[in-house]
Amino acid sequence: MQHQPQREQTHELLKSRGIERALFANYASVKWLTGFNPPLHTGPSVFSGGPPMVWYENGAWTLLTLDWHAANAGAFGQQPNCALVTYTGYTVDQPLAGQVKLRGLFRRVVQNNLSGKIAAELRDVPADIALSLHEIGAADIIPIDTWIEPFRRIKTTEELGKLRDNFRLTDIGHAAARAALKPGVREIDLWHAAHNAIESAAGQLVPMGNDCVVGSRQENIGGLPLDLAVGEGDSVILDLGTILHGYWSDSCATLYAGEPSAKQRAIHQAVGRGLDYAISLTKPGAIARDIDAQVREFMRREGYPVYPHHTGHSLGVTSHEDPRIVPYNDMVLQENMVVMLEPGVYFPGETSVRLEDAVRVTSDGAEILTHHDKSLP
Amino acid sequence: MQHQPQREQTHELLKSRGIERALFANYASVKWLTGFNPPLHTGPSVFSGGPPMVWYENGAWTLLTLDWHAANAGAFGQQPNCALVTYTGYTVDQPLAGQVKLRGLFRRVVQNNLSGKIAAELRDVPADIALSLHEIGAADIIPIDTWIEPFRRIKTTEELGKLRDNFRLTDIGHAAARAALKPGVREIDLWHAAHNAIESAAGQLVPMGNDCVVGSRQENIGGLPLDLAVGEGDSVILDLGTILHGYWSDSCATLYAGEPSAKQRAIHQAVGRGLDYAISLTKPGAIARDIDAQVREFMRREGYPVYPHHTGHSLGVTSHEDPRIVPYNDMVLQENMVVMLEPGVYFPGETSVRLEDAVRVTSDGAEILTHHDKSLP
Repeated sequence: MQHQPQREQTHELLKSRGIERALFANYASVKWLTGFNPPLHTGPSVFSGGPPMVWYENGAWTLLTLDWHAANAGAFGQQPNCALVTYTGYTVDQPLAGQVKLRGLFRRVVQNNLSGKIAAELRDVPADIALSLHEIGAADIIPIDTWIEPFRRIKTTEELGKLRDNFRLTDIGHAAARAALKPGVREIDLWHAAHNAIESAAGQLVPMGNDCVVGSRQENIGGLPLDLAVGEGDSVILDLGTILHGYWSDSCATLYAGEPSAKQRAIHQAVGRGLDYAISLTKPGAIARDIDAQVREFMRREGYPVYPHHTGHSLGVTSHEDPRIVPYNDMVLQENMVVMLEPGVYFPGETSVRLEDAVRVTSDGAEILTHHDKSLP
Repeated sequence: MQHQPQREQTHELLKSRGIERALFANYASVKWLTGFNPPLHTGPSVFSGGPPMVWYENGAWTLLTLDWHAANAGAFGQQPNCALVTYTGYTVDQPLAGQVKLRGLFRRVVQNNLSGKIAAELRDVPADIALSLHEIGAADIIPIDTWIEPFRRIKTTEELGKLRDNFRLTDIGHAAARAALKPGVREIDLWHAAHNAIESAAGQLVPMGNDCVVGSRQENIGGLPLDLAVGEGDSVILDLGTILHGYWSDSCATLYAGEPSAKQRAIHQAVGRGLDYAISLTKPGAIARDIDAQVREFMRREGYPVYPHHTGHSLGVTSHEDPRIVPYNDMVLQENMVVMLEPGVYFPGETSVRLEDAVRVTSDGAEILTHHDKSLP
């Protein structure tokens, strides 16, 4: 059953709060509740009338979306208490009016005799749809933004399967980029080597972020690739995040064009020790901010400036989510949380190193989910 | 002045309707009003708190967006009567709360003594922001969805420059795919050939749609590429749309792995004649639905089944917009409209051909903006 535990948890929560009807419109919530995975490599579809939405009514779930995206819902609509309903996006017979059609579909789904209170993710519901709730008799709208986010932190078996598939892709991307790197290759060429290998292996388009920058850039922590040639002796930070089955992956390696200098070797080894140390701290009961503080202190003792970013974060239907491994976060790690750990050392305008693995919190430690080569050449 | 004519037209419209304050939240409206071009190759940013928005107040314009996207606004904020304001997306010091911060920023921008009526694109404004308009004193909210869309139909000189840059990219992509095609190459390999060449020439990542499908597919009109090998004698429909400077391009060629058959040659030549005919009809004063009917009739007389899609469409800040060249549309073409024309012939499961050019409507005819090779091998 596609994403059933997600809906069960949510149903129990809503029931316990006395909520019989709810509208979810946050992109992450909708993906998490249903397993829906709409395409996004060119941004919002011009035929789409708004965000995909999920209507909940006493334990029954309806996904409302563009007709062109019906296949992206997988088996959702064939399951008990689940329905998929769509509106027409593209037609040559009428002017495009996705927004009007989505609102019309919504009104048909929620019926006309609606009364009493309704819960909604008001930060993501389009205003005209929220206003139409009043028109059709809803007396109160209870905001439920971020209510289900805490459930997303512990991954189900199905989600872990999606993540494993996806981490395999970033492993493939790293290997291809490593093979393609030599002095004179541009950041964008390295990106293509990684991305083409990933999409070839997946047999489909796979959206990809995050960073591909030479260490001699002034802003050498991250950024998208440009037509900047990698010079002899440059490090390159390659941080890849792909989206497969609607879930993100994320892993980082640092590569070298030619032979790394003694300083680069020393930094790389120190960051590797920092990453190993971070992984050793990751287990049930550990507190996010303690891991953060300990890894920062470790890098300080290694004699390097402390990285200006997070020590780590989780991911799932988004690329960066809780538990964040950052200074303020007193969240306690639990089994089947998934955490990225990514210490780095940056000398802007000179060189930089970051290494990142993903781990699953096990019953007594951490299982590494990423298997890309992070060694010195 | 970046996109100034767009704002002048809009200002005149709002003034003529007695509107002194307005909120734009439609993605196309915001891009068109400001020249803003946020990245989108991996979908919505997890750090973002909602859509970029534009607040209008008596001739002054404020763009509200994520701090990470400030550079994507170009020179907008440095112009007279224009301001760029941002909220913090990523930080390690606090929980991520982009949505709360965007709403807070909005309230600071619109001030507390707001009263009277406010206009808003309510289909795209998040509900919680629309509700906060009431909280801060707005008595009425006037929906202005689609009000400025008609202005988008005639392109400014600046917009035509963006489109020309972009059509150059799809030309490059078509040439690279043509060179890469031979039997055994997969759809996805052809896509990579085109996309890598485009991004290499642009020196940056460029989002790309539309279609790359072998003619022997059952669904041979369009679709994203898969790991399907192109067989000897297969046609391939390659329809490329790229996004540069926030504007779309679009052009289609049909390629052949090996020697096309006599039937394929005949179809290809007929579609070529259909495209030439469509271009010959495109001039100021022509009516969209007449062009549509005449080109369909032309293909019927050539002896082929008539394509099930539009004859053409415009584009700009979106990939498909008015004037649509479709049966219902009585819109009259005017100088500096930009129109795609794309007749095709489809024999599902067997073969298919589509050819597409973009033209600018001139004072007395049409200027072709696309220069990709559409010839038979």
